[in-house]
Amino acid sequence: MRPSGRAPDEMRVITIETGFTKHAEGSCLISFGETKVLVTASVEERVPPWLRGKGSGWVTAEYSMLPRATHTRGQREAAKGKQSGRTQEIQRLIGRSLRAVTDLEKLGERQITLDCDVIQADGGTRTASITGAWVALRIAVDKLLKDGKLSEDPITAKVAAISCGIHQGTPVLDLDYAEDSNADADANFVLIEGGQIAEAQATAEGATYDEEGLLRLLRLAQIGCAQIYKAQGEAVAK
Amino acid sequence: MRPSGRAPDEMRVITIETGFTKHAEGSCLISFGETKVLVTASVEERVPPWLRGKGSGWVTAEYSMLPRATHTRGQREAAKGKQSGRTQEIQRLIGRSLRAVTDLEKLGERQITLDCDVIQADGGTRTASITGAWVALRIAVDKLLKDGKLSEDPITAKVAAISCGIHQGTPVLDLDYAEDSNADADANFVLIEGGQIAEAQATAEGATYDEEGLLRLLRLAQIGCAQIYKAQGEAVAK
Amino acid sequence: MRPSGRAPDEMRVITIETGFTKHAEGSCLISFGETKVLVTASVEERVPPWLRGKGSGWVTAEYSMLPRATHTRGQREAAKGKQSGRTQEIQRLIGRSLRAVTDLEKLGERQITLDCDVIQADGGTRTASITGAWVALRIAVDKLLKDGKLSEDPITAKVAAISCGIHQGTPVLDLDYAEDSNADADANFVLIEGGQIAEAQATAEGATYDEEGLLRLLRLAQIGCAQIYKAQGEAVAK
Amino acid sequence: MRPSGRAPDEMRVITIETGFTKHAEGSCLISFGETKVLVTASVEERVPPWLRGKGSGWVTAEYSMLPRATHTRGQREAAKGKQSGRTQEIQRLIGRSLRAVTDLEKLGERQITLDCDVIQADGGTRTASITGAWVALRIAVDKLLKDGKLSEDPITAKVAAISCGIHQGTPVLDLDYAEDSNADADANFVLIEGGQIAEAQATAEGATYDEEGLLRLLRLAQIGCAQIYKAQGEAVAK
Amino acid sequence: MRPSGRAPDEMRVITIETGFTKHAEGSCLISFGETKVLVTASVEERVPPWLRGKGSGWVTAEYSMLPRATHTRGQREAAKGKQSGRTQEIQRLIGRSLRAVTDLEKLGERQITLDCDVIQADGGTRTASITGAWVALRIAVDKLLKDGKLSEDPITAKVAAISCGIHQGTPVLDLDYAEDSNADADANFVLIEGGQIAEAQATAEGATYDEEGLLRLLRLAQIGCAQIYKAQGEAVAK
Amino acid sequence: MRPSGRAPDEMRVITIETGFTKHAEGSCLISFGETKVLVTASVEERVPPWLRGKGSGWVTAEYSMLPRATHTRGQREAAKGKQSGRTQEIQRLIGRSLRAVTDLEKLGERQITLDCDVIQADGGTRTASITGAWVALRIAVDKLLKDGKLSEDPITAKVAAISCGIHQGTPVLDLDYAEDSNADADANFVLIEGGQIAEAQATAEGATYDEEGLLRLLRLAQIGCAQIYKAQGEAVAK
Repeated sequence: MRPSGRAPDEMRVITIETGFTKHAEGSCLISFGETKVLVTASVEERVPPWLRGKGSGWVTAEYSMLPRATHTRGQREAAKGKQSGRTQEIQRLIGRSLRAVTDLEKLGERQITLDCDVIQADGGTRTASITGAWVALRIAVDKLLKDGKLSEDPITAKVAAISCGIHQGTPVLDLDYAEDSNADADANFVLIEGGQIAEAQATAEGATYDEEGLLRLLRLAQIGCAQIYKAQGEAVAK
Repeated sequence: MRPSGRAPDEMRVITIETGFTKHAEGSCLISFGETKVLVTASVEERVPPWLRGKGSGWVTAEYSMLPRATHTRGQREAAKGKQSGRTQEIQRLIGRSLRAVTDLEKLGERQITLDCDVIQADGGTRTASITGAWVALRIAVDKLLKDGKLSEDPITAKVAAISCGIHQGTPVLDLDYAEDSNADADANFVLIEGGQIAEAQATAEGATYDEEGLLRLLRLAQIGCAQIYKAQGEAVAK
Repeated sequence: MRPSGRAPDEMRVITIETGFTKHAEGSCLISFGETKVLVTASVEERVPPWLRGKGSGWVTAEYSMLPRATHTRGQREAAKGKQSGRTQEIQRLIGRSLRAVTDLEKLGERQITLDCDVIQADGGTRTASITGAWVALRIAVDKLLKDGKLSEDPITAKVAAISCGIHQGTPVLDLDYAEDSNADADANFVLIEGGQIAEAQATAEGATYDEEGLLRLLRLAQIGCAQIYKAQGEAVAK
Repeated sequence: MRPSGRAPDEMRVITIETGFTKHAEGSCLISFGETKVLVTASVEERVPPWLRGKGSGWVTAEYSMLPRATHTRGQREAAKGKQSGRTQEIQRLIGRSLRAVTDLEKLGERQITLDCDVIQADGGTRTASITGAWVALRIAVDKLLKDGKLSEDPITAKVAAISCGIHQGTPVLDLDYAEDSNADADANFVLIEGGQIAEAQATAEGATYDEEGLLRLLRLAQIGCAQIYKAQGEAVAK
Repeated sequence: MRPSGRAPDEMRVITIETGFTKHAEGSCLISFGETKVLVTASVEERVPPWLRGKGSGWVTAEYSMLPRATHTRGQREAAKGKQSGRTQEIQRLIGRSLRAVTDLEKLGERQITLDCDVIQADGGTRTASITGAWVALRIAVDKLLKDGKLSEDPITAKVAAISCGIHQGTPVLDLDYAEDSNADADANFVLIEGGQIAEAQATAEGATYDEEGLLRLLRLAQIGCAQIYKAQGEAVAK
Repeated sequence: MRPSGRAPDEMRVITIETGFTKHAEGSCLISFGETKVLVTASVEERVPPWLRGKGSGWVTAEYSMLPRATHTRGQREAAKGKQSGRTQEIQRLIGRSLRAVTDLEKLGERQITLDCDVIQADGGTRTASITGAWVALRIAVDKLLKDGKLSEDPITAKVAAISCGIHQGTPVLDLDYAEDSNADADANFVLIEGGQIAEAQATAEGATYDEEGLLRLLRLAQIGCAQIYKAQGEAVAK
């Protein structure tokens, strides 16, 4: 029995509110249950130094938790003077996931930065961030296409992410904090619509797992992402 | 004529949505027109080292802008590795303002941190932060009173803040970004319900001003704060 | 009765020793009683990146306390690896105050940096810094005029600063440390010769104050600055 | 055809030279072909603050590349003043992998730090680090057992790691730099002797991959780790 | 011929003004010609963590140049966020030199920090700092003796420092900036009254030097320090 | 009697293994007894900003200790976020020593960086670094000459370094850790083949020393360096 009463392959309610802030070229407030992340996509007509003059664009991400997104207040990274290893690991993952579905040459010499700021955390903040980042990116790119700054769509597919894990011996989909802090194994999958995998990460926590376990987690992720692609499609259609 | 079409002594619409996040002891999303700040109050049963064992509590604040709260994306302070002088100046002002209406001995040996994160900026982020911080503090203190952790109310009055300025020769109330970036003088007043002043700061930008100008800006601030106290009262009554 | 025995509107003795260091284009050692600040003006034939090619100059300031300027030794900011919020707030104020009386276009594409290093602190270090910075700036600009690097004087007026406060219920002028650490309200005014205000900052400490109090503090500041303009004039005339 | 001429499931030569440095409680210089990592295990009779008094020990890791471990010189992280996101991600992975085979309660209130310093890099530095770290840990724990500081062995199994990837359409084992910089997908598996998985990470680089691809990479990793366990066993038997 | 017209073994005028600041337990403004350093000695009734409870005191030093102590303005180390290698090297040397003449056990469990802030630089700032630091330390220790906090004098002898160098083939004493920036070899000697050496550092700059050269530089330093001990004695006698 | 049983003027065994890493233009692993340092020379076709376009090259050095090079583990400087004063002092010394035997104009507009990473420490790490750095530099320059990138040899002589000290009243050569941690005086000499001195540094630790002592230490260093030049010559001849 899951703490939330959900079935093993049952996701939390996903909501995606687009246009949450007026300045960004694309933005959304995405919720996976009580986890809420504000994502903005910012288009800049420049690329990092190492890409200049190479005819290619760049997609990158930054991630942060507001200090009181969590049960107890965490110290602000700007006050500490550095980003934690966890923060850096997550923002590298988000950037990589979005680049997996972007043709950087078609994007031209511009950079799109996806800022993912966690307003409230209840498990799965990195997967909600990737999922919302695709929506913000899609909106920003649609604007570039509409404004005639791009002639071809550089986005090749939808990308979504979901966490799964083994909780009290049972593989379950979309862990909330109560499960996540207690799972035997914890996995994050970044899947591309059409069946491809962009990233698979499965970590043993209390117990280890075997090949069969890995496959069962991947199957759950495929079930979850099918629902997420649908939510993403509806959000950008609005 | 103001860019927004408002009368010189006309405020923007203020909305205060309390309980915006579930973990914090007090929270609100406050809007002054298009300026939106998320404020959380976090109660911790400890005080800074220099206050330990002195029978007094502490109220402090931190302030940050999300990178894309503004027209163009700003670099994240956590990525730069330090908080700007502007950020530090603002968070010191917020803390001081709230302490002006808090009896720290009645608060007991605990600290309340007010985190003010600007979601969207359109002028007046520091005054919206102070105003919202009072609401979040009020809610958190009410919870402490209700839970029996406090027997006497340490909050002595309402505190609110508003910006005023001289725009094209005319003193105006509650500047938005279009006015703020263009004002001859820019002032922030932190006023306490009942007629007292907690803080007055008036800076010449393009032109300087005189004693008469300072007084007219203060009068506008008094008009504005009267409305804000009312909005604060309604927000916490809900 | 003031701890120093001074009358409420009585300043401490001001001395300004110009040419204190030989390398700087302008310099002075300014004392307000026991408060001593060494100010140097350094002229550099370059401007910050964001001003390049715009035909405008820049005036900026840095502020620091020597570790043993105070009663007990403070940690050196260079050793801590960062400037405190207080330091940054003060150096921003000094720069703003001097720019209020400088025509940056007439200055041409050059930067003048005012370094204010507090040798000994006894209250009022920021106002002594602003006052001394005007003297150092004046000397440096006179040198540019004399050397034919400037044809028109970019300094439009004298600027001076003074602290006032409410001490044991009485508004007093030019607080020393004994009063400052104990005042109900603490204000700093930056005034321009001729009656204009560049900056007004009044903060409630123990108690709050009202409109009448603010006006009385401003009147004291006007009395004080009239004496300071005279001392500035005599210093640069030497 | 692989650049090195190896068969798809052929590893590079592995050598493990134990006792490379005399001060550390455990140490080895491990080579996977031209990749060379010096690993030391340091035992300290203290635990991190958050573990004090809980009867549990800790195993952690740090990772670094010497500046000229690579084809062109990289800037020293100590000179830059911070560790890169990549460095932090890798050292977190090493620590997690070793903790997956350590019973921290049996270890008692002491910490073992595994320092992995890459002397020469030719692909697979993180997997060589994990593999070598187990050897250094094993030696250090054997010393604790021999010295009577531990009565029960806290190490539950061997752990080893290997990279695999899809190179020009073919799944291959143990990528060197020439393959790694050019692979379509890049995976790292941390496997525990007996068939369990501690960590699986598979990232699409140029192209994405599917469930079948993920399984084939895992099978190669199982082949590779079988050989590594043998090399580890021989190294510690000496 | 020296740029200053001095004879090879002729020092610049040394002046030592004691009691330059009122808060420090000991202080002086020391000049070697145009080089001016403000030194303060601060007594604190605590020792660094690694000395606690060992019955021994500590003497340490910090060194800094004001930004415009030099011909062109240097960036403030507090603004850069770190102390340069040169600064650290110098402050380590000052501390070591003073400890060479202090019996730390007799000092008791207290720390004396010598802050050396260069007001104006014209060569020899580190040697002026050491020389002035002894004066400030002597004054602070005399105060401890007079106040009955110390019963025995922990200072065992006078220590002084002087630079020498080989300039255009000739060994010369007490280099000013014009010589220093142009010398073939540059040496700093820290000598103890009575003939002992605390520290000798001789560096080849343009040309190298031999054993004979090293000895001639040491002889010059002995001539110089004899005069400095006298100046130190007169300064503390006042 | 020395702890190691060596005669006062007896060095430890020196071994120099060239070509220790394959990527660097020059490299060696140098041992002075149990002290082991890995040195690499990296050639880059660029110079620091302040040398650009001046027709001169640059030779610089960086130094680091692996965390467990020492008896107890030291904190990694990259993790602390800054290099210690000791590290900076040593790397400045190494760079200066190598530049003393390099004609920077003959080197052309390129930089050679000597990275000295201490694998195991047993006293004398800075002198082993300088000695090994000359070997790595020699190999890298020979490569530039052979590749036709240099037509004239910019290296003017061999440079070597050795520590000496006064241990229990006796001047001794090449201190190991047991002596170094216990010496009355500690000196490092950097000598150039042919009799010149590049750098002499002698520091009193427990006791001070006199002119006679300084000369005796220098004589020991000359004996030691004669043997080191021979070892350097044999190493590069291979």
